[in-house]
Order: sequence, then C-alpha cells, then structure tokens
Amino acid sequence: MQRPLRLMLVAAAAAVLLGWFGSLRAEEKSVLKFCRFRSGDLVSYGVVEGDLIRRIQGTPFGHWQTTNELYELSEVKLLVPTTPSKVLATAGNYKSHLGQTKPHPYPELFFKAPSCLIAHGENVVIPPGTEDVHFEAEVVIVIGRRAKNVPVEKALDYVLGITCGNDISARDWQQNDVQWWRAKASDTFGPVGPFIVSGIDYYNLQLTMRVNGKVMQQENTKNMVHNLAQIVSFASRYITLEPGDLIFTGTPGETKPIKPGDVLEVELEGVGVLRNGVVKASK
Amino acid sequence: MQRPLRLMLVAAAAAVLLGWFGSLRAEEKSVLKFCRFRSGDLVSYGVVEGDLIRRIQGTPFGHWQTTNELYELSEVKLLVPTTPSKVLATAGNYKSHLGQTKPHPYPELFFKAPSCLIAHGENVVIPPGTEDVHFEAEVVIVIGRRAKNVPVEKALDYVLGITCGNDISARDWQQNDVQWWRAKASDTFGPVGPFIVSGIDYYNLQLTMRVNGKVMQQENTKNMVHNLAQIVSFASRYITLEPGDLIFTGTPGETKPIKPGDVLEVELEGVGVLRNGVVKASK
Repeated sequence: MQRPLRLMLVAAAAAVLLGWFGSLRAEEKSVLKFCRFRSGDLVSYGVVEGDLIRRIQGTPFGHWQTTNELYELSEVKLLVPTTPSKVLATAGNYKSHLGQTKPHPYPELFFKAPSCLIAHGENVVIPPGTEDVHFEAEVVIVIGRRAKNVPVEKALDYVLGITCGNDISARDWQQNDVQWWRAKASDTFGPVGPFIVSGIDYYNLQLTMRVNGKVMQQENTKNMVHNLAQIVSFASRYITLEPGDLIFTGTPGETKPIKPGDVLEVELEGVGVLRNGVVKASK
Repeated sequence: MQRPLRLMLVAAAAAVLLGWFGSLRAEEKSVLKFCRFRSGDLVSYGVVEGDLIRRIQGTPFGHWQTTNELYELSEVKLLVPTTPSKVLATAGNYKSHLGQTKPHPYPELFFKAPSCLIAHGENVVIPPGTEDVHFEAEVVIVIGRRAKNVPVEKALDYVLGITCGNDISARDWQQNDVQWWRAKASDTFGPVGPFIVSGIDYYNLQLTMRVNGKVMQQENTKNMVHNLAQIVSFASRYITLEPGDLIFTGTPGETKPIKPGDVLEVELEGVGVLRNGVVKASK
C-alpha cells in the first residue's frame, strides 16, 4: 500500500471513530444534568457534577463535548435554561387540580411568552391591576429537536429533558379576560430552571411546591392526565416545536395567592429546586 | 494648532456629522416602505422604490443606511418581514365584527406564535381535524424598539410601521378548546407582509379582504375600537415588547370559511397586498 493512501485510510478510520464516540455521547442513556450559566462575560451550557459545573462546548441541542473548565455552582449566575422560540403550557392536567371537572380528552394547551421567563433566584413582580396572583408548581418539558407530527411512541425522542417551572397566574385576569395572555404571560410570570435533567423516569417523580418553607402542593407525576409524550405529540400535530421550546405540563392540587416577600420553591425529585422571591411592581 | 491635534478635531467633527446624518435618516418622518427578502444566499432588509428594492445595511430597527445594490421586486423571495420574539393579536376590535357584543373597555389580546407566520406567496395549510377555517384581514403593528409601560401619547414612537396580516382562525377549535392556541397559531395560520410602511397616517386607511378576487371584508382603520397607540400602550403595561414583535389589530365585518384552491388577498391602502394560496395538509 502506498504511503499517502495508508495515511488517508488512517485518517478516515479516525474520523469514523470520532464520529462514533460523538454519537455515543449524544445517545447515551445515563442521567445528565445541564444548566445554562453566566460567569463574568461567559454565557455557556454546562454539566452539573455535584457542586461544580463542567462547561461544555456546543449546546445540549446539538453536538457537544465536555471541557476541562470547572465552575463552582454557587459562584455563577444560573440562567433561564433555554432561549425558546415559544412557550406552551397545559391546563387541567391533574385530577387533583380539576376537582369536579371532567378531564379533557386531549391536552388543553395555551401560550406563555418567552418574555415572561425568569431564572432561579430572580423575583416574580406582581403587576398593578391584579389582586389574585397564584403559584403553580409544574414539570416543564424541554424540546431537544424539531418536532412536527411526531407519534406518541416516538415523542420522548424529541425531548431533551425536564426542568422545574412555576406557572404564575393572575386568577382575576384569567377569569375576566377573553384570553389568558396577561394572566399567564405578564413579565416575570414564568420562573423556570435551573437544571435540565435527562435520562430519568419522568413518570414517577415527586413534585412539591413550598411557600416560605411550607408545603402547598405535592403530587407524583404519574398522576398526570396526559403524560409528557402525549402532550408533545399532540402539540406537534399543529405547531412545529423547536429545540429549546418549553412546555409546562400542568399543576396539581390547589393553588393559593402569593404576596410580596414570599419565597417560592418548586422542587422536582431528581431535578432540583427552583427558588424565586416575590415583589410588588414599583409604580 | 499642532497638526495631529487638527487632524483629530477634523475626524471628530466628521464623526459628529456622520452621526447626525445617521440619526436624521432614522428619525425623518417621510414615508418609508421596507421589506425583508432573499436573493440567492443573501437575506437582507431593503427599501422599496417602485419595482426595485434598494438593499440597506443594518436593519430598520437600528442604524441603517442605503447601499447601491438594487434588486427587482419580482426576482427576489419576499420573506416574513420580521423575526419576532412574540406575536400578539387583538380580539373584537371593530364594531362591525362584534355585532351585538359590547366593545371591550380595553384591548382584549391573545397570542399567535412566531412559528405560524408565513410570507407573501406561501400557502395556508388546513390541518386535519378542523372543518371551519376562516380568513381575517388585519392591520399588523411592527414594534420598532423595546417598549415597557409606554403611555398612549408616546406609543407610536415605539412602532416602526404597519404591514398586512391574515389572522387565520379555526372557528371550531376557537369555540371548543379552553384557549385559542391551535385555533389561531397552527403552522401557516399567520400570513403577514410583505411590506412594512412607516410615516403614513395609520388611522385612515382602507383595509380590504378579497377571496378569489371577490371583496369579502372592507373597512377603514378609523373604525377600530382601540387604535394602534392604545393597543401598544396597553400590551406594554404587562409584556415587554421587543423590536420586530408583531401585534395583529383585529378584523372588521364578517369572516367566511376558506377552502383548498382559494387565493386570499389582504390589501391595506398605502401598504400593499398580501397574497396567499390555500391547500389541505397531506396526510
């Protein structure tokens, strides 16, 4: 074999192997905990390892690889975990929340807006004109790749993972407006994050809402009326879902009003705790 | 005066003058017609001059200047005129559409989604599961700069211009779903464009809907219940509006079902014609 040809073959084999390892990393089913963070001027995704974040090159939505850069979790600013093109949410998806109302035959969806999202540690701002703003602890689906018309059996292949969300809701506006736009999507009405976890069983997790340390909602995700795959499949029949898009999946039990000074915590087993304060808008 | 100092002063004066001309261009009140277009690999904004597009450097949302590059309007692909972070729309904003219903005391808004937008010349695709999809000719506001809590008197300063829109609506889903997400934001349900016009009197324009050449809706924008400034101001109380965001402003009169093969035209006086076909989803 001639030398240049041999070299080319070695290079080709190396390329194939690199590609294989790359796809192995992307496909592996082990548990992964991602976050998006800022440290100084750097904004990046990372993989959470205990109290540390290992920065990754790329994003969880495409090819990525770990780096040797480590950051203390406590010393970075944790960001809203994606920059979605749209945010959907699900109404009435736990029997415990529906009360006497019959469950809907398919997921009943609505829009929140990317502009309402706030990160772990940021404050919900109660706007003027509402007197009845509630918490709503929720599991939030993070879409991993473009999804249109995906069947239920394949829908989880399009999900990168799940995160914690608080579907802040102004009940008076929800009741009286024609649609829920400001009731559900006023600025700061979408606390979400801080971690995206993939590779766990999404259908058997404890979801807990605490206000000032007191448990206000608690339920297992197995009690959802429509599960994550059903929600993604149904939404994708009508609307093309993009990587990073978020879908809130409904809240269990009963919700209560929040007030300035409250500390809201959404805890999702195996995923983490999303903590946000509450303030009143300065007039 | 030393030579280097003199040179620096001349340079500084030139910079000030350039800045002044730049801001003059951005602030001037003459009529401007923008479009976003693709020609080969190039995607750019341009200013429409008769049958030609003069490419601009930058975007209408910031500093921009004309170039010497001219394109034939008939030879480019006209694109959705902005890439918005969100799309709002207004319900019941002409008495002729409300019928016996009393006008709302403030704009009643709802969300469409950026993913539903299609350009001039593209087809509305009727999805499976609805039997009653209607046209809705509308004026669409294009937000020019970030707006939060802007008073009505200043609201038009945050508007870049207006364009044509067709708020495609599945009446059966609108009637029966909890919220209007798929009724109003299924893929292709948001024809919009092709031109953004600024500097005209937005409050005295004829808005016309034609289906297969036949006039189906016609009304003057002076008959809006809530005008553009009132809508922008109200929305911005709750939601931060970003450059490029779109707000549909409601449809007049009566709407009718559309069917595969129809040609839909929304004409807005002084702005242009938005033309779209209708097809059925391939199953």
